[in-house]
Amino acid sequence: MRDLVEIGMGRTARQAFDLDDVEIVPSRRTRSSKVVSTAWQIDAYRFGLPMVTHPTDAIVSPANAIAIGKLGGLGVLNAEGLWARHSNVDEALGRVLRVAENLEEPSSLVRELQELHAAPLRSELIAEAIKTVRDAGVTVAARVSPQHAAELTPDLLAAGVEILVVQGTIVSAEHVSQDDEPPLNLKDFIAELDVPVVVGGVSDYRTAMHLMRTGAAGVIVGHGYTAGVTSTDRVLGIGVPMATAIIDAAAARRDYLDETGGRYVHVLADGGVTCSGELAKAIACGADAVMLGAPLAAASDAPGKGLYWTSAAAHPSLPRSRIAAGPDIEVDLETLLFGPSSDPDGVVNLFGALRRAMAKTGYSDLKEFQKVGLTVRG
Amino acid sequence: MRDLVEIGMGRTARQAFDLDDVEIVPSRRTRSSKVVSTAWQIDAYRFGLPMVTHPTDAIVSPANAIAIGKLGGLGVLNAEGLWARHSNVDEALGRVLRVAENLEEPSSLVRELQELHAAPLRSELIAEAIKTVRDAGVTVAARVSPQHAAELTPDLLAAGVEILVVQGTIVSAEHVSQDDEPPLNLKDFIAELDVPVVVGGVSDYRTAMHLMRTGAAGVIVGHGYTAGVTSTDRVLGIGVPMATAIIDAAAARRDYLDETGGRYVHVLADGGVTCSGELAKAIACGADAVMLGAPLAAASDAPGKGLYWTSAAAHPSLPRSRIAAGPDIEVDLETLLFGPSSDPDGVVNLFGALRRAMAKTGYSDLKEFQKVGLTVRG
Amino acid sequence: MRDLVEIGMGRTARQAFDLDDVEIVPSRRTRSSKVVSTAWQIDAYRFGLPMVTHPTDAIVSPANAIAIGKLGGLGVLNAEGLWARHSNVDEALGRVLRVAENLEEPSSLVRELQELHAAPLRSELIAEAIKTVRDAGVTVAARVSPQHAAELTPDLLAAGVEILVVQGTIVSAEHVSQDDEPPLNLKDFIAELDVPVVVGGVSDYRTAMHLMRTGAAGVIVGHGYTAGVTSTDRVLGIGVPMATAIIDAAAARRDYLDETGGRYVHVLADGGVTCSGELAKAIACGADAVMLGAPLAAASDAPGKGLYWTSAAAHPSLPRSRIAAGPDIEVDLETLLFGPSSDPDGVVNLFGALRRAMAKTGYSDLKEFQKVGLTVRG
Amino acid sequence: MRDLVEIGMGRTARQAFDLDDVEIVPSRRTRSSKVVSTAWQIDAYRFGLPMVTHPTDAIVSPANAIAIGKLGGLGVLNAEGLWARHSNVDEALGRVLRVAENLEEPSSLVRELQELHAAPLRSELIAEAIKTVRDAGVTVAARVSPQHAAELTPDLLAAGVEILVVQGTIVSAEHVSQDDEPPLNLKDFIAELDVPVVVGGVSDYRTAMHLMRTGAAGVIVGHGYTAGVTSTDRVLGIGVPMATAIIDAAAARRDYLDETGGRYVHVLADGGVTCSGELAKAIACGADAVMLGAPLAAASDAPGKGLYWTSAAAHPSLPRSRIAAGPDIEVDLETLLFGPSSDPDGVVNLFGALRRAMAKTGYSDLKEFQKVGLTVRG
Repeated sequence: MRDLVEIGMGRTARQAFDLDDVEIVPSRRTRSSKVVSTAWQIDAYRFGLPMVTHPTDAIVSPANAIAIGKLGGLGVLNAEGLWARHSNVDEALGRVLRVAENLEEPSSLVRELQELHAAPLRSELIAEAIKTVRDAGVTVAARVSPQHAAELTPDLLAAGVEILVVQGTIVSAEHVSQDDEPPLNLKDFIAELDVPVVVGGVSDYRTAMHLMRTGAAGVIVGHGYTAGVTSTDRVLGIGVPMATAIIDAAAARRDYLDETGGRYVHVLADGGVTCSGELAKAIACGADAVMLGAPLAAASDAPGKGLYWTSAAAHPSLPRSRIAAGPDIEVDLETLLFGPSSDPDGVVNLFGALRRAMAKTGYSDLKEFQKVGLTVRG
Repeated sequence: MRDLVEIGMGRTARQAFDLDDVEIVPSRRTRSSKVVSTAWQIDAYRFGLPMVTHPTDAIVSPANAIAIGKLGGLGVLNAEGLWARHSNVDEALGRVLRVAENLEEPSSLVRELQELHAAPLRSELIAEAIKTVRDAGVTVAARVSPQHAAELTPDLLAAGVEILVVQGTIVSAEHVSQDDEPPLNLKDFIAELDVPVVVGGVSDYRTAMHLMRTGAAGVIVGHGYTAGVTSTDRVLGIGVPMATAIIDAAAARRDYLDETGGRYVHVLADGGVTCSGELAKAIACGADAVMLGAPLAAASDAPGKGLYWTSAAAHPSLPRSRIAAGPDIEVDLETLLFGPSSDPDGVVNLFGALRRAMAKTGYSDLKEFQKVGLTVRG
Repeated sequence: MRDLVEIGMGRTARQAFDLDDVEIVPSRRTRSSKVVSTAWQIDAYRFGLPMVTHPTDAIVSPANAIAIGKLGGLGVLNAEGLWARHSNVDEALGRVLRVAENLEEPSSLVRELQELHAAPLRSELIAEAIKTVRDAGVTVAARVSPQHAAELTPDLLAAGVEILVVQGTIVSAEHVSQDDEPPLNLKDFIAELDVPVVVGGVSDYRTAMHLMRTGAAGVIVGHGYTAGVTSTDRVLGIGVPMATAIIDAAAARRDYLDETGGRYVHVLADGGVTCSGELAKAIACGADAVMLGAPLAAASDAPGKGLYWTSAAAHPSLPRSRIAAGPDIEVDLETLLFGPSSDPDGVVNLFGALRRAMAKTGYSDLKEFQKVGLTVRG
Repeated sequence: MRDLVEIGMGRTARQAFDLDDVEIVPSRRTRSSKVVSTAWQIDAYRFGLPMVTHPTDAIVSPANAIAIGKLGGLGVLNAEGLWARHSNVDEALGRVLRVAENLEEPSSLVRELQELHAAPLRSELIAEAIKTVRDAGVTVAARVSPQHAAELTPDLLAAGVEILVVQGTIVSAEHVSQDDEPPLNLKDFIAELDVPVVVGGVSDYRTAMHLMRTGAAGVIVGHGYTAGVTSTDRVLGIGVPMATAIIDAAAARRDYLDETGGRYVHVLADGGVTCSGELAKAIACGADAVMLGAPLAAASDAPGKGLYWTSAAAHPSLPRSRIAAGPDIEVDLETLLFGPSSDPDGVVNLFGALRRAMAKTGYSDLKEFQKVGLTVRG
């Protein structure tokens, strides 16, 4: 039943599909959008939208995290990004924007970001950002890399983080390293925490299963691949066709649920979503929520002023993300999420579109919609 | 025999094909084009061409509906469009054209159309349009959305509509809704009418079968997808590869014919046709008639003066169609349909080309031509 | 073993491949190009190259037919083209070139050609052209359409034609027509002639087999499809993926050889060849010779001065060919065919490249090279 | 298990894949990049990097060969290139660069190169180049064509060559030729030499196996295909989808190892690598080392000053390589290989990226990494 393709003598490969390779097929009674729910809950936290942000300064400032929270989503602050290194982030972002305005080449933009990230981490800065969000009454989340998780987490918890995101390009349950770089044992790390932890990214069933066994509340699939922005495939040879990756992680979720007799680990899809149609497809493939990046950069009130990059853009020696401009649409975040829209290409009214996709295919909640039929292009 | 592809662990999808993925294969005696018939009949109405228009103001005014009828096709007035809302449609269309001339962005054009559609429906206006067409002695058809079908139909019938088209992006035989939005039971609705009803769109066998069981005379496959114009795939994740969708609906037609011992429900293909070759392929896949849109916008006497949009372009909160310019060819409608042509790309002499495709493959009528052999690109 | 794909419920299609979908695989001892022969013989006529021209005025004038013949190929005069209608063809072609220089749109060019072809056929003109070629001592061939074959052939034979080409877009052994258009029975027609007849185009095994049974010496596969020039797919829905079409016709050749106990009918590939690599692939798929069109238009001494069109470009009501400029390379015909080349893209030294492809894969004659291994892109 | 596709009646073809058709799938514990080794050894020669250069003057001068050697790779001088024909190579290259600056067409650049290669081979020149490299203390390698191998090799050995590369587009163990062109019997040729010999290119299992049986230390797969530069597919019809070609050659390596009870012949991949991700994929498919070309031309200190061509570009009658500009990145060779990088597209820090790809997928040496899982695009 596994469709293996012989790609050479004695070597087979699975076929893998991207979100834009698949189509949703309506085949049931239609419903009114009004009877559709997009509610999502992870651990004790309940959200109106199945939306978590990619942890990039291009879309998440404390102010934006608050706005996102009030609209029903979860903004994730990058605890190793600009808000953790600079007291005046507006000025720092301004430097990137000026380079972009001068139409300089991709590497100049990356270099600017690398320089800004060469400033040391200051725990009091990110703590203040976290408190700002928490004080506004919305759920507060922050991301750390696996390398710095052990070191940075205590301060984040002290500052009031409610959901911890441990995220790198590829994360495994165990990391092999030399003496000067202590490995992170995720299982031990998570066991000691009182807050739910979301970890990733992964791109296959097996690693997803291992991460689920660490006690994580959620597993991230993918690493924020977005057309024109991230290029992990060109840099590392590791591309993640998201439709297949999400489906595989959902299979791990199902098997782990069976193995544990009922522990449900959420699957968050990070990448491949550039429009509302692909957002719907990510859920249709089995994602519990979508980690949105580039689409949110189009909001007129986004910190990056229309520019987008992933958290891998600032790596000091091997950056894996361009800094690119998104669609120029001049709507605020609320309109971006809920409309109304005059845009015919699926970049405005993202969740109105999701509701309508669910309604037109006859599903009333996200969990049900994960079973909708799909076709692939022949 | 069903070709299922494993797109991830435990999840399969059918392969689906678009019209431009397939090719017609000649394999019989050739015929003279003169011995080929393109006649089509639905209910008591007989047409020289298997052509119904997409119900958009960009191509159908009362005057154009008359011209189309006299040339052998069926023009469908949009009973919820500009002719139902504005007493001076020329002026209204002029506003859209002016925005287009100023080269403004897609959303500005959509916004203009949304504003024009915010004007209230006035039943006397569409009634007058219908009478104008009927008085000219051609078959008159009008389109309503499922939401407004019950409300608007009585006036349309009173005005003399002969064929009713109930059309939304995705239509099912039963619609689930809340109290404030009464569901349309298509079976009951159709049973009470004396005129033939065409309903859609659908994209799969099962929904097509359900719609056939409502008593419809015809079922529409697709939702007017045209390259560069409609983007339901980007907005809702619902793309409809038309070759497969038409073949599946034709399978439903065959099974329903068997189930009922002889009731033949017509399959109308709405989308994927940008040239005469694709028109021929739509029939070759099993369509009884083609719902033409963008190709007709190229006529010099089209109301949209070369611009094209589908009826989904004016949706107030979630538009799913660009407003785009078609090929600039400067021929009138009659030449567009019957030639002669100096255009080498299949946009002029649409039905002369269909006749020739049938002749070259040795078929003399449309029903036979539905069986012609096809290949797919490897 | 037949790879059928389900393209919809109850409908299957064969996969078909174009020349640029396949690759030749070297897997034997290499040879020196010097020990390779590209000789080809049809009926009593022997050629140094497996090359026949597409019968278009863009590449074949009497002078060019002589030059082609002296270099080892066979030029085919279009007996229904400009040389059969105008006493001053240079002036006629000049009109087309002037329209092209003014950068007018495709349909203007086609219209010019249509007007030039509206002039009546004059048998004395084409007779003179044929005699000119024959007097130069090279084999002389001319093309007629199936519609005019019976009427025009006697004069062509009287003028000295040695190989007759009966060519339309799609030709079948029997053509069904009305009384005012007498059908051509190819079998009877060919039986009465003393010269070898080449007929086509066909695109499938069955029609190829039927044409072989008419007594034809050669069957043409395809209808001159060339990227950017011919658009039979867009106009009629009939595209011919040439790799599969050639292989199928070669299968018919094999089966007909068996059926007749030894009559070998040549397969000529007309289309899909834009460079020397595709020329080699056409032979590798089983063609005995290639009907070259667009690549020859690049010669500095071609009548079309770099413009190319197929014989279907001038159809009065349904043209199926653009008039397009080829590569601008400034070499004469001899260099185009035999080099030397400074062009890295396979448009110069066409037959030097074929020899080298045969040598590198270890084959010494064309018939053997038809068995070389192929891969397809996965 | 062999996936054969029917491409026409009675003719099948294997599916073949390029490096950019496949993706590496992480599915094990991750590692620190610091515990990863990229060491490679062939015969007695040990290298820090699995990198050999394509033997083109665009990237290898004696000075660059020394620099490459000191950084851990192996530069291969083209013993039939400019360094073997001109005493002032800088001036010769300057002529090519001037033509390029004047934006002349591809064939003008090729013509310039052809003229430069029309100068006679002078053994004292290449001997001097070899000695220069050897005196610097790095391993010295030079390439000869199969045609001139017998004639040129003695002088190269006398000059101190340590690894001999016998390379043509397609090389077989035996070459059939006429009397005036004595064949090279590779087995006899290699048996008489004391230095390890690397031979190629090949594109299939069988030819690879035959070359391994000649006693070669390494076999080259491919012929330097690089997007935009080489066009052997267009010229000869012989394209080499590199993922499949490398896998097949690795299968030959395995079978030959078994057949000989332990002789390990290295597989060098020459082509298809334009970025670090594809470099990683080449190893992942089974290559022991990669023959790098175009990516090295981007170094600010490359002899071609950013231009790139393969050794087939200067063929006097049938060139098969464009001369093209690579990415404009302004970093030196060391940074190109080891970073740090501000480039997000995989063209800088090529081997830092390889280490990271190995680390992220959990492998610690190249031989192990050849087993990493792969997917193909569906």
